[in-house]
Amino acid sequence: MSALPKALEELIEALSYLPGVGPRSAERYAYFLLKNDKNKTKKLSKSLSALHSSVKNCPKTFALINSDDKVSDLYSDSDRNKSIVALVADPFDIIAIEKTSLFKGTYHVLGGLISPIDGIGPEQLHIPELKKRIKQDKVQEIILATNASVEGETTALYIQQELSEFKLEITRLARGLPIGVDLEYADQITLGRALEGRQNL
Amino acid sequence: MSALPKALEELIEALSYLPGVGPRSAERYAYFLLKNDKNKTKKLSKSLSALHSSVKNCPKTFALINSDDKVSDLYSDSDRNKSIVALVADPFDIIAIEKTSLFKGTYHVLGGLISPIDGIGPEQLHIPELKKRIKQDKVQEIILATNASVEGETTALYIQQELSEFKLEITRLARGLPIGVDLEYADQITLGRALEGRQNL
Repeated sequence: MSALPKALEELIEALSYLPGVGPRSAERYAYFLLKNDKNKTKKLSKSLSALHSSVKNCPKTFALINSDDKVSDLYSDSDRNKSIVALVADPFDIIAIEKTSLFKGTYHVLGGLISPIDGIGPEQLHIPELKKRIKQDKVQEIILATNASVEGETTALYIQQELSEFKLEITRLARGLPIGVDLEYADQITLGRALEGRQNL
Repeated sequence: MSALPKALEELIEALSYLPGVGPRSAERYAYFLLKNDKNKTKKLSKSLSALHSSVKNCPKTFALINSDDKVSDLYSDSDRNKSIVALVADPFDIIAIEKTSLFKGTYHVLGGLISPIDGIGPEQLHIPELKKRIKQDKVQEIILATNASVEGETTALYIQQELSEFKLEITRLARGLPIGVDLEYADQITLGRALEGRQNL
Protein backbone atom coordinates (compact mmCIF):
# COMPACT_ATOMS: atom_id res chain seq x y z
CA MET A 1 0.00 0.00 0.00
CA SER A 2 1.62 3.18 -1.21
CA ALA A 3 0.57 6.76 -0.64
CA LEU A 4 1.32 7.58 -4.29
CA PRO A 5 0.13 6.20 -7.65
CA LYS A 6 2.77 4.21 -9.49
CA ALA A 7 3.01 6.57 -12.47
CA LEU A 8 3.74 9.47 -10.17
CA GLU A 9 6.37 7.55 -8.23
CA GLU A 10 8.10 6.61 -11.47
CA LEU A 11 8.07 10.21 -12.67
CA ILE A 12 9.51 11.44 -9.37
CA GLU A 13 12.26 8.85 -9.61
CA ALA A 14 13.04 9.86 -13.21
CA LEU A 15 13.10 13.57 -12.34
CA SER A 16 15.41 12.93 -9.37
CA TYR A 17 17.99 11.82 -11.91
CA LEU A 18 18.52 15.44 -13.03
CA PRO A 19 21.60 17.13 -11.55
CA GLY A 20 20.88 18.95 -8.28
CA VAL A 21 17.27 17.72 -8.15
CA GLY A 22 16.47 15.87 -4.92
CA PRO A 23 13.30 13.93 -4.08
CA ARG A 24 11.58 17.06 -2.72
CA SER A 25 12.14 19.13 -5.88
CA ALA A 26 11.17 16.13 -8.02
CA GLU A 27 7.89 15.83 -6.08
CA ARG A 28 7.28 19.53 -6.58
CA TYR A 29 7.92 19.34 -10.34
CA ALA A 30 5.75 16.23 -10.72
CA TYR A 31 2.84 17.71 -8.80
CA PHE A 32 3.15 20.95 -10.74
CA LEU A 33 2.98 19.10 -14.06
CA LEU A 34 0.01 17.09 -12.84
CA LYS A 35 -1.94 20.16 -11.74
CA ASN A 36 -1.16 22.30 -14.77
CA ASP A 37 -1.81 22.26 -18.48
CA LYS A 38 -1.55 18.73 -19.93
CA ASN A 39 -0.06 20.06 -23.16
CA LYS A 40 3.02 21.40 -21.41
CA THR A 41 3.71 17.93 -20.01
CA LYS A 42 3.19 16.39 -23.46
CA LYS A 43 5.52 18.96 -24.99
CA LEU A 44 8.23 18.21 -22.44
CA SER A 45 7.79 14.49 -23.02
CA LYS A 46 8.10 14.91 -26.79
CA SER A 47 11.17 17.15 -26.56
CA LEU A 48 12.83 14.55 -24.37
CA SER A 49 12.04 11.62 -26.63
CA ALA A 50 13.35 13.52 -29.66
CA LEU A 51 16.49 14.81 -27.97
CA HIS A 52 19.10 12.16 -28.69
CA SER A 53 17.99 11.50 -32.26
CA SER A 54 17.73 15.20 -33.22
CA VAL A 55 21.05 16.43 -31.89
CA LYS A 56 24.60 15.43 -32.73
CA ASN A 57 28.09 16.81 -32.45
CA CYS A 58 29.52 18.75 -35.37
CA PRO A 59 32.33 16.55 -36.78
CA LYS A 60 34.58 19.61 -37.19
CA THR A 61 33.98 21.75 -34.09
CA PHE A 62 32.07 19.32 -31.79
CA ALA A 63 29.44 22.00 -31.22
CA LEU A 64 25.90 20.65 -30.94
CA ILE A 65 24.00 20.71 -34.25
CA ASN A 66 20.76 19.38 -35.74
CA SER A 67 21.31 15.77 -36.72
CA ASP A 68 20.42 16.51 -40.36
CA ASP A 69 23.02 19.28 -40.62
CA LYS A 70 26.54 18.51 -41.83
CA VAL A 71 28.62 20.98 -39.86
CA SER A 72 27.96 23.79 -37.43
CA ASP A 73 26.65 27.07 -38.92
CA LEU A 74 29.21 28.82 -36.77
CA TYR A 75 31.90 27.00 -38.75
CA SER A 76 30.48 26.87 -42.28
CA ASP A 77 29.26 30.48 -42.38
CA SER A 78 31.48 32.55 -44.69
CA ASP A 79 31.38 35.49 -42.25
CA ARG A 80 33.31 33.51 -39.65
CA ASN A 81 37.05 33.73 -39.62
CA LYS A 82 38.39 30.16 -39.62
CA SER A 83 41.92 31.26 -38.78
CA ILE A 84 40.86 32.24 -35.24
CA VAL A 85 39.60 29.41 -33.03
CA ALA A 86 38.13 29.81 -29.56
CA LEU A 87 38.73 26.62 -27.57
CA VAL A 88 35.90 25.90 -25.12
CA ALA A 89 35.17 23.03 -22.73
CA ASP A 90 31.45 22.51 -23.38
CA PRO A 91 29.03 23.33 -26.22
CA PHE A 92 27.12 25.68 -23.90
CA ASP A 93 30.19 27.88 -23.53
CA ILE A 94 29.65 28.77 -27.19
CA ILE A 95 26.26 30.30 -26.38
CA ALA A 96 27.83 32.44 -23.67
CA ILE A 97 30.45 33.80 -26.07
CA GLU A 98 27.96 34.25 -28.94
CA LYS A 99 25.80 36.40 -26.64
CA THR A 100 28.61 38.99 -26.52
CA SER A 101 28.37 39.37 -30.35
CA LEU A 102 32.06 40.28 -30.22
CA PHE A 103 33.61 37.11 -31.63
CA LYS A 104 33.69 36.42 -35.36
CA GLY A 105 36.08 33.48 -35.37
CA THR A 106 35.13 29.80 -35.06
CA TYR A 107 34.86 27.43 -32.11
CA HIS A 108 36.32 24.11 -31.08
CA VAL A 109 34.73 22.15 -28.24
CA LEU A 110 37.18 20.12 -26.15
CA GLY A 111 34.43 18.02 -24.59
CA GLY A 112 35.52 18.63 -21.00
CA LEU A 113 38.43 19.80 -18.89
CA ILE A 114 41.31 17.75 -17.55
CA SER A 115 40.24 16.57 -14.11
CA PRO A 116 41.96 13.52 -12.60
CA ILE A 117 39.35 13.40 -9.80
CA ASP A 118 36.54 12.96 -12.33
CA GLY A 119 38.68 10.56 -14.38
CA ILE A 120 39.01 12.95 -17.32
CA GLY A 121 42.45 12.83 -18.92
CA PRO A 122 43.78 14.75 -21.94
CA GLU A 123 43.19 11.72 -24.20
CA GLN A 124 39.43 12.21 -23.81
CA LEU A 125 39.53 15.76 -25.18
CA HIS A 126 39.18 16.58 -28.89
CA ILE A 127 42.82 17.64 -29.25
CA PRO A 128 43.81 15.51 -32.30
CA GLU A 129 40.87 17.01 -34.22
CA LEU A 130 42.02 20.49 -33.20
CA LYS A 131 45.50 19.79 -34.56
CA LYS A 132 43.97 18.64 -37.85
CA ARG A 133 41.95 21.88 -38.04
CA ILE A 134 45.03 23.99 -37.32
CA LYS A 135 46.71 22.51 -40.40
CA GLN A 136 43.66 22.42 -42.69
CA ASP A 137 42.30 25.88 -41.87
CA LYS A 138 45.71 27.55 -41.47
CA VAL A 139 44.76 28.66 -37.95
CA GLN A 140 46.72 31.69 -36.73
CA GLU A 141 45.27 32.25 -33.26
CA ILE A 142 43.89 29.91 -30.61
CA ILE A 143 41.97 31.62 -27.81
CA LEU A 144 41.93 29.42 -24.70
CA ALA A 145 38.41 30.17 -23.50
CA THR A 146 38.33 27.71 -20.61
CA ASN A 147 36.94 28.40 -17.14
CA ALA A 148 39.06 30.39 -14.68
CA SER A 149 39.13 27.29 -12.44
CA VAL A 150 41.92 24.87 -11.52
CA GLU A 151 40.71 22.43 -14.21
CA GLY A 152 40.41 25.25 -16.74
CA GLU A 153 43.93 26.51 -16.06
CA THR A 154 45.41 23.00 -16.08
CA THR A 155 43.78 22.25 -19.41
CA ALA A 156 44.93 25.57 -20.87
CA LEU A 157 48.50 24.83 -19.82
CA TYR A 158 48.35 21.34 -21.30
CA ILE A 159 46.94 22.60 -24.61
CA GLN A 160 49.63 25.28 -24.78
CA GLN A 161 52.35 22.60 -24.50
CA GLU A 162 50.59 20.31 -27.00
CA LEU A 163 50.41 23.10 -29.58
CA SER A 164 54.03 24.22 -29.21
CA GLU A 165 54.86 22.43 -32.49
CA PHE A 166 52.67 24.89 -34.43
CA LYS A 167 53.54 28.44 -35.33
CA LEU A 168 50.53 30.28 -33.96
CA GLU A 169 49.49 32.81 -31.37
CA ILE A 170 47.95 31.35 -28.23
CA THR A 171 45.91 33.76 -26.13
CA ARG A 172 43.47 33.37 -23.31
CA LEU A 173 40.50 35.31 -21.92
CA ALA A 174 41.57 38.25 -19.76
CA ARG A 175 41.39 37.85 -16.00
CA GLY A 176 40.32 40.93 -14.08
CA LEU A 177 37.53 42.67 -12.25
CA PRO A 178 34.04 41.64 -13.33
CA ILE A 179 32.03 44.64 -14.51
CA GLY A 180 29.92 46.23 -11.79
CA VAL A 181 31.90 44.80 -8.91
CA ASP A 182 33.38 47.05 -6.23
CA LEU A 183 37.12 46.83 -5.77
CA GLU A 184 36.74 46.19 -2.06
CA TYR A 185 34.56 43.13 -2.69
CA ALA A 186 36.83 41.53 -5.29
CA ASP A 187 38.74 38.49 -4.03
CA GLN A 188 42.53 38.69 -3.69
CA ILE A 189 43.35 36.39 -6.59
CA THR A 190 41.09 38.26 -9.02
CA LEU A 191 42.49 41.58 -7.89
CA GLY A 192 46.04 40.25 -8.21
CA ARG A 193 45.32 39.10 -11.77
CA ALA A 194 43.72 42.46 -12.59
CA LEU A 195 46.90 44.21 -11.41
CA GLU A 196 49.24 41.93 -13.34
CA GLY A 197 47.17 42.29 -16.49
CA ARG A 198 46.59 46.06 -16.23
CA GLN A 199 45.69 47.59 -19.56
CA ASN A 200 46.69 50.92 -21.20
CA LEU A 201 43.98 53.54 -21.32
CA MET B 1 21.81 31.23 -37.30
CA SER B 2 21.48 29.88 -33.80
CA ALA B 3 24.18 28.60 -31.50
CA LEU B 4 21.94 25.69 -30.46
CA PRO B 5 20.13 22.90 -32.34
CA LYS B 6 16.35 23.33 -32.47
CA ALA B 7 15.56 20.18 -30.45
CA LEU B 8 17.77 21.35 -27.64
CA GLU B 9 16.24 24.84 -27.63
CA GLU B 10 12.77 23.33 -27.44
CA LEU B 11 13.75 21.08 -24.56
CA ILE B 12 15.29 23.99 -22.66
CA GLU B 13 12.10 26.00 -23.17
CA ALA B 14 9.94 23.08 -21.96
CA LEU B 15 12.14 22.51 -18.90
CA SER B 16 12.03 26.23 -18.02
CA TYR B 17 8.31 25.76 -17.47
CA LEU B 18 8.98 23.82 -14.25
CA PRO B 19 8.58 25.85 -11.06
CA GLY B 20 11.79 27.52 -9.92
CA VAL B 21 13.72 26.39 -13.02
CA GLY B 22 15.27 29.28 -14.93
CA PRO B 23 16.99 29.18 -18.34
CA ARG B 24 20.38 28.36 -16.77
CA SER B 25 19.12 25.34 -14.82
CA ALA B 26 17.12 24.22 -17.86
CA GLU B 27 20.31 24.37 -19.98
CA ARG B 28 22.13 22.37 -17.33
CA TYR B 29 19.42 19.69 -17.21
CA ALA B 30 19.20 19.48 -21.00
CA TYR B 31 22.94 19.16 -21.46
CA PHE B 32 23.12 16.58 -18.68
CA LEU B 33 20.44 14.46 -20.34
CA LEU B 34 22.21 14.78 -23.69
CA LYS B 35 25.57 13.69 -22.30
CA ASN B 36 24.28 10.84 -20.16
CA ASP B 37 22.53 7.51 -20.67
CA LYS B 38 19.87 7.72 -23.40
CA ASN B 39 17.62 5.32 -21.51
CA LYS B 40 17.22 7.70 -18.58
CA THR B 41 15.95 10.37 -20.97
CA LYS B 42 13.58 7.87 -22.60
CA LYS B 43 12.33 6.81 -19.18
CA LEU B 44 11.65 10.40 -18.15
CA SER B 45 9.88 11.03 -21.45
CA LYS B 46 7.67 7.96 -20.99
CA SER B 47 6.81 8.78 -17.38
CA LEU B 48 5.75 12.24 -18.48
CA SER B 49 3.61 11.06 -21.37
CA ALA B 50 1.84 8.53 -19.13
CA LEU B 51 1.34 10.93 -16.22
CA HIS B 52 -2.05 12.48 -16.87
CA SER B 53 -3.69 9.30 -18.13
CA SER B 54 -2.36 7.08 -15.29
CA VAL B 55 -3.22 9.26 -12.34
CA LYS B 56 -6.57 10.58 -11.09
CA ASN B 57 -8.07 11.92 -7.91
CA CYS B 58 -9.82 9.52 -5.57
CA PRO B 59 -13.53 10.45 -5.74
CA LYS B 60 -13.85 10.10 -1.96
CA THR B 61 -10.66 11.57 -0.52
CA PHE B 62 -9.18 13.41 -3.54
CA ALA B 63 -5.86 11.72 -2.88
CA LEU B 64 -3.95 10.79 -6.06
CA ILE B 65 -4.58 7.21 -7.18
CA ASN B 66 -3.89 4.98 -10.18
CA SER B 67 -6.54 5.69 -12.82
CA ASP B 68 -7.69 2.06 -12.79
CA ASP B 69 -8.30 2.05 -9.03
CA LYS B 70 -11.71 2.97 -7.63
CA VAL B 71 -10.80 4.68 -4.37
CA SER B 72 -7.63 5.34 -2.43
CA ASP B 73 -6.08 2.38 -0.57
CA LEU B 74 -5.73 4.71 2.38
CA TYR B 75 -9.51 4.97 2.44
CA SER B 76 -10.69 1.51 1.45
CA ASP B 77 -8.26 -0.41 3.65
CA SER B 78 -10.11 -2.02 6.57
CA ASP B 79 -7.26 -1.10 8.95
CA ARG B 80 -7.94 2.61 8.52
CA ASN B 81 -10.35 4.29 10.90
CA LYS B 82 -12.90 6.17 8.77
CA SER B 83 -14.26 8.10 11.76
CA ILE B 84 -11.03 10.13 12.00
CA VAL B 85 -10.21 12.35 9.01
CA ALA B 86 -7.02 14.36 8.53
CA LEU B 87 -7.77 17.36 6.34
CA VAL B 88 -4.79 18.32 4.13
CA ALA B 89 -4.25 20.95 1.43
CA ASP B 90 -2.40 18.87 -1.16
CA PRO B 91 -2.04 15.16 -1.97
CA PHE B 92 1.65 15.33 -1.13
CA ASP B 93 0.86 16.27 2.46
CA ILE B 94 -0.50 12.74 2.80
CA ILE B 95 2.94 11.27 2.08
CA ALA B 96 4.48 13.47 4.79
CA ILE B 97 1.97 12.24 7.37
CA GLU B 98 2.18 8.60 6.21
CA LYS B 99 5.93 8.71 6.74
CA THR B 100 5.38 9.21 10.47
CA SER B 101 3.48 5.83 10.56
CA LEU B 102 1.51 7.32 13.47
CA PHE B 103 -1.81 8.00 11.79
CA LYS B 104 -4.37 5.24 11.19
CA GLY B 105 -7.33 7.38 10.19
CA THR B 106 -8.24 8.50 6.65
CA TYR B 107 -7.45 11.63 4.65
CA HIS B 108 -9.37 14.30 2.82
CA VAL B 109 -7.58 16.57 0.37
CA LEU B 110 -8.93 20.12 0.18
CA GLY B 111 -7.17 20.84 -3.09
CA GLY B 112 -5.54 24.05 -1.90
CA LEU B 113 -5.71 26.69 0.80
CA ILE B 114 -7.82 29.85 0.84
CA SER B 115 -5.63 32.56 -0.69
CA PRO B 116 -7.32 35.68 -2.13
CA ILE B 117 -4.01 36.79 -3.69
CA ASP B 118 -3.82 33.58 -5.75
CA GLY B 119 -7.55 33.74 -6.49
CA ILE B 120 -8.37 30.65 -4.42
CA GLY B 121 -11.65 30.97 -2.55
CA PRO B 122 -13.40 28.46 -0.26
CA GLU B 123 -15.75 27.43 -3.09
CA GLN B 124 -12.78 25.83 -4.90
CA LEU B 125 -11.98 23.50 -1.97
CA HIS B 126 -13.51 20.05 -1.58
CA ILE B 127 -15.65 21.05 1.40
CA PRO B 128 -19.07 19.79 0.19
CA GLU B 129 -17.54 16.34 -0.34
CA LEU B 130 -16.10 16.47 3.17
CA LYS B 131 -19.53 17.22 4.63
CA LYS B 132 -20.95 14.24 2.74
CA ARG B 133 -18.22 12.02 4.17
CA ILE B 134 -18.87 13.29 7.70
CA LYS B 135 -22.46 12.06 7.42
CA GLN B 136 -21.78 8.82 5.52
CA ASP B 137 -18.79 7.66 7.53
CA LYS B 138 -20.05 8.97 10.89
CA VAL B 139 -16.85 10.99 11.31
CA GLN B 140 -16.07 11.83 14.95
CA GLU B 141 -12.83 13.78 14.61
CA ILE B 142 -11.45 16.13 11.97
CA ILE B 143 -7.75 16.91 12.26
CA LEU B 144 -6.94 20.20 10.54
CA ALA B 145 -3.54 19.28 9.10
CA THR B 146 -2.93 22.46 7.11
CA ASN B 147 0.31 24.42 6.95
CA ALA B 148 1.24 26.70 9.83
CA SER B 149 1.07 29.66 7.38
CA VAL B 150 -1.40 32.53 7.08
CA GLU B 151 -3.28 30.65 4.34
CA GLY B 152 -3.24 27.46 6.41
CA GLU B 153 -4.60 29.19 9.51
CA THR B 154 -7.25 31.09 7.52
CA THR B 155 -8.44 27.90 5.89
CA ALA B 156 -8.50 26.07 9.24
CA LEU B 157 -10.63 28.84 10.74
CA TYR B 158 -13.01 28.78 7.79
CA ILE B 159 -13.41 25.01 7.93
CA GLN B 160 -14.04 25.16 11.66
CA GLN B 161 -16.95 27.57 11.08
CA GLU B 162 -18.27 25.54 8.15
CA LEU B 163 -18.36 22.38 10.25
CA SER B 164 -20.03 23.96 13.29
CA GLU B 165 -23.33 22.31 12.27
CA PHE B 166 -21.84 18.85 12.94
CA LYS B 167 -21.32 17.26 16.32
CA LEU B 168 -17.65 16.33 16.09
CA GLU B 169 -14.28 17.04 17.57
CA ILE B 170 -12.10 19.42 15.55
CA THR B 171 -8.40 19.34 16.36
CA ARG B 172 -5.32 20.66 14.65
CA LEU B 173 -1.64 19.73 14.54
CA ALA B 174 0.30 20.97 17.57
CA ARG B 175 2.43 24.09 17.20
CA GLY B 176 5.70 24.10 19.09
CA LEU B 177 9.44 23.68 18.88
CA PRO B 178 10.65 21.54 15.98
CA ILE B 179 12.72 18.60 17.21
CA GLY B 180 16.45 19.28 17.30
CA VAL B 181 16.16 23.06 17.36
CA ASP B 182 17.78 25.15 20.09
CA LEU B 183 15.44 27.35 22.11
CA GLU B 184 17.54 30.40 21.41
CA TYR B 185 17.17 29.96 17.66
CA ALA B 186 13.40 29.45 17.66
CA ASP B 187 11.42 32.45 16.37
CA GLN B 188 9.20 34.38 18.76
CA ILE B 189 5.89 33.20 17.33
CA THR B 190 6.86 29.54 17.46
CA LEU B 191 8.18 29.94 21.00
CA GLY B 192 4.99 31.77 22.01
CA ARG B 193 2.86 28.94 20.59
CA ALA B 194 5.06 26.37 22.34
CA LEU B 195 4.46 28.18 25.65
CA GLU B 196 0.71 28.46 25.15
CA GLY B 197 0.42 24.82 24.16
CA ARG B 198 2.74 23.45 26.87
CA GLN B 199 2.13 19.77 27.57
CA ASN B 200 2.08 17.75 30.82
CA LEU B 201 5.05 15.48 31.35
